[in-house]
Amino acid sequence: MAKAPVLTPRADDFPRWYQDLITKAELADNGPVRGTMVIRPYGYGLWERMQQDMDARIKETGTQNAYFPLLIPQSYLSREADHVEGFAPELAVVTHGGGKELEEPAVVRPTSEMIINASFSKWVQSYRDLPLLINQWGNVVRWELRPRLFLRTTEFLWQEGHTAHATYEEARDFAARIQHQVYADFMRNTLAMDVVLGRKTAKERFAGAINTLTLEGMMGDGKALQLGTSHELGQNFAKAFNTRFLSKEGEQELVWQTSWGSTTRMIGALVMMHGDDDGLRVPPRLAAVQAVVLAVKGDDTVLAKVREMGDRLKAVGVRVQVDDRTDLPFGRRVVDWELKGVPVRIEVGPRDLEDGTAMLARRIPGSKEPVAIDSLAGLLPAVLEDDQALLLRQSRERRESRTAEVSTVEEAVEAAASGGWARIPWAALGAEGEAELAEHAVTVRCLVAEDGSVPESEDAPGNVAVVARAY
Amino acid sequence: MAKAPVLTPRADDFPRWYQDLITKAELADNGPVRGTMVIRPYGYGLWERMQQDMDARIKETGTQNAYFPLLIPQSYLSREADHVEGFAPELAVVTHGGGKELEEPAVVRPTSEMIINASFSKWVQSYRDLPLLINQWGNVVRWELRPRLFLRTTEFLWQEGHTAHATYEEARDFAARIQHQVYADFMRNTLAMDVVLGRKTAKERFAGAINTLTLEGMMGDGKALQLGTSHELGQNFAKAFNTRFLSKEGEQELVWQTSWGSTTRMIGALVMMHGDDDGLRVPPRLAAVQAVVLAVKGDDTVLAKVREMGDRLKAVGVRVQVDDRTDLPFGRRVVDWELKGVPVRIEVGPRDLEDGTAMLARRIPGSKEPVAIDSLAGLLPAVLEDDQALLLRQSRERRESRTAEVSTVEEAVEAAASGGWARIPWAALGAEGEAELAEHAVTVRCLVAEDGSVPESEDAPGNVAVVARAY
Repeated sequence: MAKAPVLTPRADDFPRWYQDLITKAELADNGPVRGTMVIRPYGYGLWERMQQDMDARIKETGTQNAYFPLLIPQSYLSREADHVEGFAPELAVVTHGGGKELEEPAVVRPTSEMIINASFSKWVQSYRDLPLLINQWGNVVRWELRPRLFLRTTEFLWQEGHTAHATYEEARDFAARIQHQVYADFMRNTLAMDVVLGRKTAKERFAGAINTLTLEGMMGDGKALQLGTSHELGQNFAKAFNTRFLSKEGEQELVWQTSWGSTTRMIGALVMMHGDDDGLRVPPRLAAVQAVVLAVKGDDTVLAKVREMGDRLKAVGVRVQVDDRTDLPFGRRVVDWELKGVPVRIEVGPRDLEDGTAMLARRIPGSKEPVAIDSLAGLLPAVLEDDQALLLRQSRERRESRTAEVSTVEEAVEAAASGGWARIPWAALGAEGEAELAEHAVTVRCLVAEDGSVPESEDAPGNVAVVARAY
Repeated sequence: MAKAPVLTPRADDFPRWYQDLITKAELADNGPVRGTMVIRPYGYGLWERMQQDMDARIKETGTQNAYFPLLIPQSYLSREADHVEGFAPELAVVTHGGGKELEEPAVVRPTSEMIINASFSKWVQSYRDLPLLINQWGNVVRWELRPRLFLRTTEFLWQEGHTAHATYEEARDFAARIQHQVYADFMRNTLAMDVVLGRKTAKERFAGAINTLTLEGMMGDGKALQLGTSHELGQNFAKAFNTRFLSKEGEQELVWQTSWGSTTRMIGALVMMHGDDDGLRVPPRLAAVQAVVLAVKGDDTVLAKVREMGDRLKAVGVRVQVDDRTDLPFGRRVVDWELKGVPVRIEVGPRDLEDGTAMLARRIPGSKEPVAIDSLAGLLPAVLEDDQALLLRQSRERRESRTAEVSTVEEAVEAAASGGWARIPWAALGAEGEAELAEHAVTVRCLVAEDGSVPESEDAPGNVAVVARAY
């Protein structure tokens, strides 16, 4: 007899499966103010691991962390025309502080270009102060009418980088370096996520940018999700804040800037890219707990053995947790570890011990087989790396098998409607075709060059548009 | 000829010295909304090191990190009478979101008791769910009329712990464990700060608590600064949110709670406790850069040598930075490293190299002497530990020498007015004396027992009140 499913199956109702998984794996809850979320310890643990890894990569580029105020004078927002137009509908506004109405309302930051540029214009005096490379970890608020946990929330956590450079080329190269070395590399190698790196069309650009680089991932239902973005801001914000430097040649020049961000949305992507009908599958390199050693029963010999095994696995560098909660039913604990997506379970019962074996259950391939206990410490590091590679391969294969090469808007719409992506020559689509797609809730996720690289311009010959429905 | 002072001397104008130091050491700037601050990379680096150290200590107690929303429905605040009364005058209120007036305004969290209890009341069902030990790193907003960078800012960064327990005793012991093992130990051993651990009087308690433990430090001008606090909340918030659990005996019972926090104010304390007329002095265990190796001149031999020395010091575990910016005047670089308080400077010039020596300048004792280059790697770890110990000793000696034992309110006021603390028997002072002190802007910082431990109650015989002016 088949057991009752713990989650709504993905094939029945993907959005409900997503919500079920987030609740049952204890990743997050809704907060009381519409669109806000409570990130529970298990979900926050994923974010902490992401932060550590990304923070090290960001620092390797020479970028330093700093912190800028949450509250921004409302008037600042209007200094850059495109920026205010982009963000005005999403703002949360503080009108009262300390029991009084404020002379000037303050907005809760939806992003920090404006407040950071107010500092940059003071800090940058000479070419010696450049490049100025700053990152901030924090929270932002964008009022969300159709919230969904992790994907679109009124408040979310992120890192936002902001840099100023002496030349256009330096700024352009730095934005690309972040997109490749920090974001794409992290998502592929740590999160085991297949992502397509491309440039946004003019319509899809960040408000105030002259170019936006993006990473797009295909979720389990074939929709796209935008992950990290990196923007060339040109001199738009420098003009708005008069951020100038004295060049080597003795001229006062405007700086060239970038900004780039990645958010708690990556947790939602992790769920929708790697999750299955039993729950989450956490990539081993990300997992705070890579292997759990479970005592099947509360037998003294078993308990002693699982603790000893835990120590041995720790000694070879595996992040391990011992589950000796034998007052809880074994089956319930297994379901919980499957929901939480811990890559490896090692189950130890009295009968296994007699044989010197344990059951090795691998969450990612979904395999289960007895192995000699003494071989585990030697085996596990390679098992975890194999599973890491398998996750990435599965996500790449999904994208490849569900991406259609098309040549008309109609075909592109059809591909998107049937749960996939389409690739169409940008020359055949153009801004007009892009507008037609929008009528069917299909968007150009990004443009890529013929050889798969990032196009140097929107109009470079051979550009291909990757189009899809998106979260 | 004496060089012109870089900072206003402390003896001339302590508050101005503080502001000068923060600006010139590039710790922080004022933000555009009154009372907000920009934490610059060097200041934020201190915070990151504090966070890492504290986070590890917090996790050692079994506490897990999580994240709760910034925005709290205004009605939540009024559920606990003392709490709302304490925080109402400091609230920032969001009245508009997404272009519309909100049906119910939201407050920007001044602290998260209310929003966290809304979750706790859902998460806690049975005694098996207890203790529930949660910590959050984040920002809070308390409208500040007389702001001062790091000490009182409208927005600040902090960690706030929130726990729920089955019994009064467990909650009381956990609050004490945090205060001793996490806060006091961190401040003494990592920050090299002498702190007095005691309990607050009823008047000075956290809004909604039944007991508040505090750590008080004496600043360079003899005033007190409250550092970490840990609160026993009793069942006040459990009642407000009906947070109950099914006990082992099958009864529905209210949980017992604690909350505890420490903030970016610790950076201000670091400045005012360890700073001198040349700038900050960073305790070696905290310092991201413990030693800087300076090339006096841009001579090839010198440059090669300082890089080699940097590598050798790194190899013995010293956090070292090489300063080879020989296009900047040497004297200016020295002043900058002194301002920033890097514990050790090793200055290498062409003449030193001929002798095989370098100049070892120790910021904390203020000494400077030539040493054999080959001895440095062996010497430095012990030098740094000595300087760490010296800082703690200096701060303890300051407190001891500037604390008077008194027996009347008049003497206590006089001691505080002349830049020091006073100790007075609580039996001689009492709530009435406390009110008298307040007229002179003097407060009871905490009560300590006769033997220096934390009193079990406010009225325990032999309690001594530590009184002072405070930031």
